[in-house]
Amino acid sequence: MRIDGVKNPRTLTVSELKSMGVTTVASVLQCSGNGRAFFPHGASGTPWSVGAAGCVMWTGVPLKDVVDALGGPADGTRYITGTGGESIPDGLDPKSIMVERSVPSRALDTALLAWEMNDTPLPHTHGGPLRLVIPGYYGVNNVKYVKHVAFTENQTDAKIQASGYRVREVGKPGSPDQPSMWEMNVKSWVNAPLEAGRSGRNMIYGVAFGGTVALEKVDVSVDGGKTWKQARFLGPDLGPYAWRPFVMAADLSSGEHRIVSRATDVDGNTQPEGRIDNERGYGHNGWSDHGVSVTVS
Amino acid sequence: MRIDGVKNPRTLTVSELKSMGVTTVASVLQCSGNGRAFFPHGASGTPWSVGAAGCVMWTGVPLKDVVDALGGPADGTRYITGTGGESIPDGLDPKSIMVERSVPSRALDTALLAWEMNDTPLPHTHGGPLRLVIPGYYGVNNVKYVKHVAFTENQTDAKIQASGYRVREVGKPGSPDQPSMWEMNVKSWVNAPLEAGRSGRNMIYGVAFGGTVALEKVDVSVDGGKTWKQARFLGPDLGPYAWRPFVMAADLSSGEHRIVSRATDVDGNTQPEGRIDNERGYGHNGWSDHGVSVTVS
Repeated sequence: MRIDGVKNPRTLTVSELKSMGVTTVASVLQCSGNGRAFFPHGASGTPWSVGAAGCVMWTGVPLKDVVDALGGPADGTRYITGTGGESIPDGLDPKSIMVERSVPSRALDTALLAWEMNDTPLPHTHGGPLRLVIPGYYGVNNVKYVKHVAFTENQTDAKIQASGYRVREVGKPGSPDQPSMWEMNVKSWVNAPLEAGRSGRNMIYGVAFGGTVALEKVDVSVDGGKTWKQARFLGPDLGPYAWRPFVMAADLSSGEHRIVSRATDVDGNTQPEGRIDNERGYGHNGWSDHGVSVTVS
Repeated sequence: MRIDGVKNPRTLTVSELKSMGVTTVASVLQCSGNGRAFFPHGASGTPWSVGAAGCVMWTGVPLKDVVDALGGPADGTRYITGTGGESIPDGLDPKSIMVERSVPSRALDTALLAWEMNDTPLPHTHGGPLRLVIPGYYGVNNVKYVKHVAFTENQTDAKIQASGYRVREVGKPGSPDQPSMWEMNVKSWVNAPLEAGRSGRNMIYGVAFGGTVALEKVDVSVDGGKTWKQARFLGPDLGPYAWRPFVMAADLSSGEHRIVSRATDVDGNTQPEGRIDNERGYGHNGWSDHGVSVTVS
């Protein structure tokens, strides 16, 4: 892979990268459109509810270690721009289809070039041999088969950056002046029970994460948000970019219950009740839509 | 399963246990004989070097939650005795073959009845549907398919406890007055490189754990123990019973290098250099035998 926009640009092999440093970071990988299914306007794209997310243990070299060895970012650069290794079919405008994403230079504190996921060599389907991982950022920024990383003054003009993954009003086209899908927001959802419960004590399970900010707490309501009780985190804390399973015991009577969860991060950000309508159904973290209706018998 | 030796003994289903509490704990599962291959007297049993260990994420109900719900341990009990669900073939003395292990009651602080490992239902081969897990204790104490847990005044007289898994001099038979294989000791080993390295910078990887005590540090030597340098822990801390990967960068010249690692726990226990000879080759944590010889070219 090639590194540009540094004092001493050069090409490096994965083998060379492996001797330059190593870190292991757990981070949620989530599609910008996770939750899109809840938007009433039928936002175009895969209609994800909660399935477009996972928590991955990434191992690779901190990008900062590599960049420091190459003299640091060039003066005036404000973005880290990663380019995927996909070959572009003849006859297509490369800019219209290439996977090239820019993220703010502040991501240099945590970015890595990963060659393993969950302690096994990174498979090609997940971006192997090398993937640019930006912990806490939406999936699209984690460029697969990365072949080029550049520190740049401006964001790339590739379509996926310039007009894609931009938050705008319903009906509007995408453009570079709109917010880009970078840091993920605080979010949670219930995993169990999903449909049926038994009268009496039920254990309510879910997951929560804070994007780039560590979690403070998760509250759970079994009456659709009228009353809340703090849940308990379950298992080891894998760090600020990971999700945390949570659990809360609740005594449920027969009938219908609306179970919802609401996470809060250590900066005090908390999930809103509703959704913010936007053309592509990005970044939905409203707690109401993410609840589940459970029939207890 | 049946719980006895408590104020209100009773039989519980796994489903009932699932509503009584839940925890997730990462713990090393290691055979008492891991390292047996290094003993020169040819200790009987599988000749493990370092392969009889893994780090597992267990999910289940804290045994304490169950016992508290049943009124607590009966007066005068000093051991937790777990019995496996294996059926005993006709014509054999059950005591000679049953898996029934006693551990000190202090293990009640951390023991769990587990129904999941690594976030999936516990397979039968690993002790499902329910396994008694004693974090930080040698493997044999983590009774598979557990059907009975009793708080007892004395240790069981089953052979696996009375004479099995006892540390004694070479040539001596096992007996109840000898130390039992309960809490694991502090230990580490190198995972990479194992045989060959390249001249220049090498990343030395390994794992370390402290049994029931959290780790303080791991030192690594590339000259067979003459000089040491502290390694860096790699990735999230999964808690005191888990192992921690470690890494250290070392510049290696051409030739033969003896790479060894030495872990120290927060109580100040550290791996000894040598081995303590014993009949069955149990509990070996000497750093010298666990080193690797690497040819750098």
